[in-house]
Amino acid sequence: MPPSLLVEQKRERPVVVAGRDLFERGPVFIAGPCAVESEAQALRIARAVKAAGATVFRGGAYKPRTSPYSFQGLGETGLEILARVRAETGLLICTEAVDGECLPRVAEVADIVQIGSRNMDSSSLLKKAGRCGRPVLLKRGFAATLDELLHAAEYIHVEGNADVILCERGIRTFSGHSRNTLDLHAVLRLRERTSLPVMVDPSHAPGLRADVVPLACAAAAVGADGVIVEVHDRPEEALSDGPQQIEPASFARLVRLFGEVARLGCARS
Amino acid sequence: MPPSLLVEQKRERPVVVAGRDLFERGPVFIAGPCAVESEAQALRIARAVKAAGATVFRGGAYKPRTSPYSFQGLGETGLEILARVRAETGLLICTEAVDGECLPRVAEVADIVQIGSRNMDSSSLLKKAGRCGRPVLLKRGFAATLDELLHAAEYIHVEGNADVILCERGIRTFSGHSRNTLDLHAVLRLRERTSLPVMVDPSHAPGLRADVVPLACAAAAVGADGVIVEVHDRPEEALSDGPQQIEPASFARLVRLFGEVARLGCARS
Amino acid sequence: MPPSLLVEQKRERPVVVAGRDLFERGPVFIAGPCAVESEAQALRIARAVKAAGATVFRGGAYKPRTSPYSFQGLGETGLEILARVRAETGLLICTEAVDGECLPRVAEVADIVQIGSRNMDSSSLLKKAGRCGRPVLLKRGFAATLDELLHAAEYIHVEGNADVILCERGIRTFSGHSRNTLDLHAVLRLRERTSLPVMVDPSHAPGLRADVVPLACAAAAVGADGVIVEVHDRPEEALSDGPQQIEPASFARLVRLFGEVARLGCARS
Amino acid sequence: MPPSLLVEQKRERPVVVAGRDLFERGPVFIAGPCAVESEAQALRIARAVKAAGATVFRGGAYKPRTSPYSFQGLGETGLEILARVRAETGLLICTEAVDGECLPRVAEVADIVQIGSRNMDSSSLLKKAGRCGRPVLLKRGFAATLDELLHAAEYIHVEGNADVILCERGIRTFSGHSRNTLDLHAVLRLRERTSLPVMVDPSHAPGLRADVVPLACAAAAVGADGVIVEVHDRPEEALSDGPQQIEPASFARLVRLFGEVARLGCARS
Repeated sequence: MPPSLLVEQKRERPVVVAGRDLFERGPVFIAGPCAVESEAQALRIARAVKAAGATVFRGGAYKPRTSPYSFQGLGETGLEILARVRAETGLLICTEAVDGECLPRVAEVADIVQIGSRNMDSSSLLKKAGRCGRPVLLKRGFAATLDELLHAAEYIHVEGNADVILCERGIRTFSGHSRNTLDLHAVLRLRERTSLPVMVDPSHAPGLRADVVPLACAAAAVGADGVIVEVHDRPEEALSDGPQQIEPASFARLVRLFGEVARLGCARS
Repeated sequence: MPPSLLVEQKRERPVVVAGRDLFERGPVFIAGPCAVESEAQALRIARAVKAAGATVFRGGAYKPRTSPYSFQGLGETGLEILARVRAETGLLICTEAVDGECLPRVAEVADIVQIGSRNMDSSSLLKKAGRCGRPVLLKRGFAATLDELLHAAEYIHVEGNADVILCERGIRTFSGHSRNTLDLHAVLRLRERTSLPVMVDPSHAPGLRADVVPLACAAAAVGADGVIVEVHDRPEEALSDGPQQIEPASFARLVRLFGEVARLGCARS
Repeated sequence: MPPSLLVEQKRERPVVVAGRDLFERGPVFIAGPCAVESEAQALRIARAVKAAGATVFRGGAYKPRTSPYSFQGLGETGLEILARVRAETGLLICTEAVDGECLPRVAEVADIVQIGSRNMDSSSLLKKAGRCGRPVLLKRGFAATLDELLHAAEYIHVEGNADVILCERGIRTFSGHSRNTLDLHAVLRLRERTSLPVMVDPSHAPGLRADVVPLACAAAAVGADGVIVEVHDRPEEALSDGPQQIEPASFARLVRLFGEVARLGCARS
Repeated sequence: MPPSLLVEQKRERPVVVAGRDLFERGPVFIAGPCAVESEAQALRIARAVKAAGATVFRGGAYKPRTSPYSFQGLGETGLEILARVRAETGLLICTEAVDGECLPRVAEVADIVQIGSRNMDSSSLLKKAGRCGRPVLLKRGFAATLDELLHAAEYIHVEGNADVILCERGIRTFSGHSRNTLDLHAVLRLRERTSLPVMVDPSHAPGLRADVVPLACAAAAVGADGVIVEVHDRPEEALSDGPQQIEPASFARLVRLFGEVARLGCARS
């Protein structure tokens, strides 16, 4: 069993392997559509985000949705499409496991298994993720404290999986002008308290396309190790989350600006 | 498929069967320890809460815990103990299914399957609960809106299970003087928007034994159909949640007072 | 200078004088319209709430409103009407001082000076209230912690005014189904931490007439010393807060039910 | 009366005069100690922040404090010191008016009158600020919605004062790892909804010195027009807010980095 994350103090930031020393070479950009909708859609967007600087493709095969009547993802077919995207583009794949049943199959296809915000508290899923043999992108629950997030990471860690990537994605507040409020203080605190990489999802909190690039740059300013961004080349046709998916040209601008802000080292003390 | 809960308007309150027309005869009291710790403990407490007026025994066999180092429940052994409690006392059993794996076995033993606050968003667990053949006690997530709670109920309902009992258990707020804030407005709104029974858990939000009886009575004042309460006869020895478990004598007082407040009909218009 | 409220421990509950040993004889009901709109309106409602059991008449002469375009109250004319209500009905008067300028004149007319939720943080107003020679009804800010509320009370107390009545009126949360969330835990905590009377305002948090009576009864269940309620005999014509003002007949029911719940002593340990 | 802020749509950003076309020449830096403590302290810090790039000196003469036992500011003496800082350094002065009584005298000394977060709801103070003849820096209440902030601005505006500078300073959330959570979405929304300058206070929300520079840079990324920062050259000796005041060298770094991030134009669409 690796040493507990919970008692670990700031030490040299170890490299999370994530397949290939992912975070060693600078900011990591995970990009792609909210959901995999078809092979053509996934391949088109994958090529676009790769050209813009992404190294990991995201796309939901299994979608956790508030309503049972919303599009729930293509499931196994979606995973097959993701495998093809990987083969054809060379991009790594990050996709969500929504329960213990789909996890083994997700882990076959994905280079990084995502645990979503709504499942951050599902300890039985976390334990299985700890045994899945893949790096895990763990999203903070939208009402979780940092202690709860780190305990969730510990559930994975304790099973022998040290490759955990933390991800801030916005918290639920009284504020009605954005869907959630991105908590950038959390990035600063997490980087102090742990040596795990800390990413930010700038797409879900605002729920508005126009906010994604500036919020990603704000994440760079507080020292985030990368971003996971929803990108769609025809957002008006998207089966889910259309209003928050940015187009490839905006994503290319995001990559460039994130890099420039990151190079300034604003969060270095 | 039954008609959607989401469009249903206030109509005659149908009886949730819950084994035996549970809610027809007045307030329902579900009581018992946070966790099943041993057969002796469970039987002692079960007899005490039955004497005090409970008709359903609660006790966790599988415990969702924030930390992987906390007591996680006795699992299968806990379920066997619950089956014995049922056989020996005649009490109905309510216990939590924390994931899809344990659900089938939980549903064999339990008369009411509980879905906890942290799993309210786990749509795959909700769908399975919709096919488990048992009434489901669905706790509101501590940061869930009522729409999200009703959508979660709909996930169960849509699979053919109309026996859903909603449960308010406190929401996360800025307030630091209690662990969570019991949202009694939610009880009023849920009773308006749905015909499902609405229970309240007065134990988890305060996290303090002294608050449980007054908060249960407040729940009666706003028209709750019953309460689910943590009761332990030796709370100082409890393996989890000791400080919030009340003793059987307090529970007897709670049953009496809840009934008296309920009879006043404060929430009838 | 009286001993600090902040270090005071639970001791015998002293009587807050409030003109006439107000809280000694049982629950206190402060009732009346959101705003004083005319002499006829105020007198009609005052007679109705007195008949129903109120001992204090409330009605805003100065109204703190979110928008400068909303009705701001009758000001000095409103105070004159309140003085007439007092003379004709024998009811005590409770009305709000919104700033240091109106406070001296408010204190001439009012038996209890109200400091509203939005001014709980205005230390210069609190200090003046501490020197105004009248009991002060101090409403908790909708985002204030209990420490902040008690510090605000201390600002009044430190100037020599020990007659402070605390009032919980709902806190701002993520929840969208009610305007604010009534925090009944706060009543339990405040009664533990201080010997000041603790009232509850069940009108503002829900913003819905139908919720007022049940929430008032819930306040009785947790041991509130009384309630301050908005009552209007023609709510559809009210110049402000129409939807949350209850009619005199509902208020009479509230007084009766609050008394019955209070007599049960649910919060006594 | 100027046209309402509330109906105004995105139009060319007018120049807020603030004495001297303040926002025309690029980001504005308002810096100085939490409180004016002595002439020597104020002058030392003023010279340091001017050298680092500030054009406005901040320092509280009247301090709104949670506890009546905390340092409440030097009052009139503090204002005299501020006048001397202005005369000796040529810096503009920004200082807070905590009530209607001190406002006229504050407005004599200050080039920008600050209305603090706790007074954002004090409509009578806002109205007086609307007649004070000075630009007003209006801080968002820590639990205020953007509509409430804009209504507060409207209270000032409606009295004839169009020189309002909005300031985001963090909102109260469930999160316990920072005092408040800086709401950078608000900056994006306010710039869309109004033509007023939008500043950010990166000092109060974290309550931690190390977070101030990265959060200021994050504010630049979302398009803030400037920052108001607490700077002290001997923070360990500060009479208030020591832990969050940064030293002049950090402030110089902040000015440089804010400028570099701002020049990237991340929030331009």
